[in-house]
Amino acid sequence: MTDPITLPVATLQSRVEAIFRKAGLNAVQAGAVAAVIVAGERDACKSHGLFRIEGTLRTVRTGKVDPQATPRLIDGPGAGIVRVDAASGFANPAFDLGLPDLVARARDLGLAAMVITDCTHFSALWAEVEAVTAQSLACMAMCPSYATVAPAGGTTALLGTNPFAFGWPRAGGDPYVFDFATSVAARGEIELYRRAGKRLPEGWALDADGAPTTDPAAALAGAMLPFGGHKGSAISTMIELLAGVMIGDLTSQAALDHLGTTTLAPKHGELILAFAPDRFAAGRPDDPQSGAEALFAAILGQGARLPSQRRFAARAQSLAQGISLTAEEAALLDRFEAQGLAALD
Amino acid sequence: MTDPITLPVATLQSRVEAIFRKAGLNAVQAGAVAAVIVAGERDACKSHGLFRIEGTLRTVRTGKVDPQATPRLIDGPGAGIVRVDAASGFANPAFDLGLPDLVARARDLGLAAMVITDCTHFSALWAEVEAVTAQSLACMAMCPSYATVAPAGGTTALLGTNPFAFGWPRAGGDPYVFDFATSVAARGEIELYRRAGKRLPEGWALDADGAPTTDPAAALAGAMLPFGGHKGSAISTMIELLAGVMIGDLTSQAALDHLGTTTLAPKHGELILAFAPDRFAAGRPDDPQSGAEALFAAILGQGARLPSQRRFAARAQSLAQGISLTAEEAALLDRFEAQGLAALD
Repeated sequence: MTDPITLPVATLQSRVEAIFRKAGLNAVQAGAVAAVIVAGERDACKSHGLFRIEGTLRTVRTGKVDPQATPRLIDGPGAGIVRVDAASGFANPAFDLGLPDLVARARDLGLAAMVITDCTHFSALWAEVEAVTAQSLACMAMCPSYATVAPAGGTTALLGTNPFAFGWPRAGGDPYVFDFATSVAARGEIELYRRAGKRLPEGWALDADGAPTTDPAAALAGAMLPFGGHKGSAISTMIELLAGVMIGDLTSQAALDHLGTTTLAPKHGELILAFAPDRFAAGRPDDPQSGAEALFAAILGQGARLPSQRRFAARAQSLAQGISLTAEEAALLDRFEAQGLAALD
Repeated sequence: MTDPITLPVATLQSRVEAIFRKAGLNAVQAGAVAAVIVAGERDACKSHGLFRIEGTLRTVRTGKVDPQATPRLIDGPGAGIVRVDAASGFANPAFDLGLPDLVARARDLGLAAMVITDCTHFSALWAEVEAVTAQSLACMAMCPSYATVAPAGGTTALLGTNPFAFGWPRAGGDPYVFDFATSVAARGEIELYRRAGKRLPEGWALDADGAPTTDPAAALAGAMLPFGGHKGSAISTMIELLAGVMIGDLTSQAALDHLGTTTLAPKHGELILAFAPDRFAAGRPDDPQSGAEALFAAILGQGARLPSQRRFAARAQSLAQGISLTAEEAALLDRFEAQGLAALD
């Protein structure tokens, strides 16, 4: 019987990294994948925390991702584009490799794009957005996923849950960051309704015949719907175009066709845009930082929230006091450390 | 009594341009403003058609816009940024001035931004997005407006209706284009409910005390709500940050404070991003154009629509048969041609 434990962030990073090394990931893959999982756990963002170890290892075991991949920078697309070939590895080490160039080019040109291709993708985009805002740049990030969402007015899954994330750097504090699925709900939320025997809210999903449904089981066999009706559907379509077809990588439909299941992490690409506010505002009378702070103060002043605040509060506590793991989570770590991929059986 | 008439597009352009010249606009202002109004009328997008002449002239008469402004290109912000100072004129001639540079830089670097500052803005963004897609580039455009929308979870107007537009070029056909307000409804729609004596749908608006309301009059005295709950609110906030504070221009709150009314066209800035798909996809196995066409075919194949199709159908008819004006619209043209600004009285 394992007891609940509290670990410093760096200790958890070492342990998760060791699990991935034991499972056959090379140093760059293990380090980057562990970092984003530990960041999720640190921020009490459980859906992207230790929970993800198992799915990551299952994807490794099927051979759908190359655990030994070394990402590489590709020359040539244009001075404003940093392209990183993930070489069939995970997206995370590819992002880490491209980040310094993205930052340098955005500062030089005013804006720049990072394109990651041929990557297996499973992490939240906020971790990447925050790596860019930490360099005093604004950031927009997006990627396709699997075809599980019907376009507004349609009947069957074609779009992915296609996350859209944005960050704005704030001097001396946590950035303004949002990161959300462009579906009205996540597939995991619908599964929770099913387990609880509850009906879904109207407008969340279609059944396998394309008719609106509030039955979670019928929804899981059918398609989810985009947030915000035709407007959200349009944004999701934009993400397929910019972060799928424009970068010469897979759409959500093609990603599903390629993998044949939604139970493993999908393979596709990602697009990250970085903007240098001090270049955009150079010579203007108004300072972007004070303008942004006035906007945030006005939002908070009327009782509305800024996104990601719960995550940042959890992070502050984790950094000060360590990350608390339940007995089950501690046992999971022990099991994967002892058994490696065999712990999946 | 004026009869209904049908005019070739070029004839309507000449007549509207002459009205603006008579009202004191210089050639670049009159030509560009007339072009976007005629484009609205041509596309049966009545809310941005001849209807706008009166509001434009009212804004001119108050002295809130400089009808003689000559926009100018500003050097220096960075090779990826084309900045145009609208010089207190309308946004439209500033966009026209910056477009060739935006196109050239996007083709060279892979992506580029156009920033328009100090402009009076009243036109739909789709006209600008389509000018970029006509150059085989993808385009994203956004701008603040007036503070008429409360952030999700808030109580009072702070954000604008902040339009977000996107376009993807399609070889040999109309582009994929969307352009929508990030509020759940336009202020004009709420006004139509009020005139019809109908209640608003739930979730559209707050009253002056910040409480949800379905009373259109109470909504007009209060605040509209963003589309899609906290997700749409986040996108609207992003637009304030990128197309307001980042470019050193006004937020929607500042634009309202500056002008003191929502009955005239607001003054603020605009951000337009252009992407060169052939640069992003260079060296990749998949061709962006065929990938995009497969996506569009799949959307249409399940009975969903692509945005802007009604507009394109109206355009085709206008180009082939001329633009049909009602007796009232024809009389409006006659009156402004004869009387200039005095027709406002």
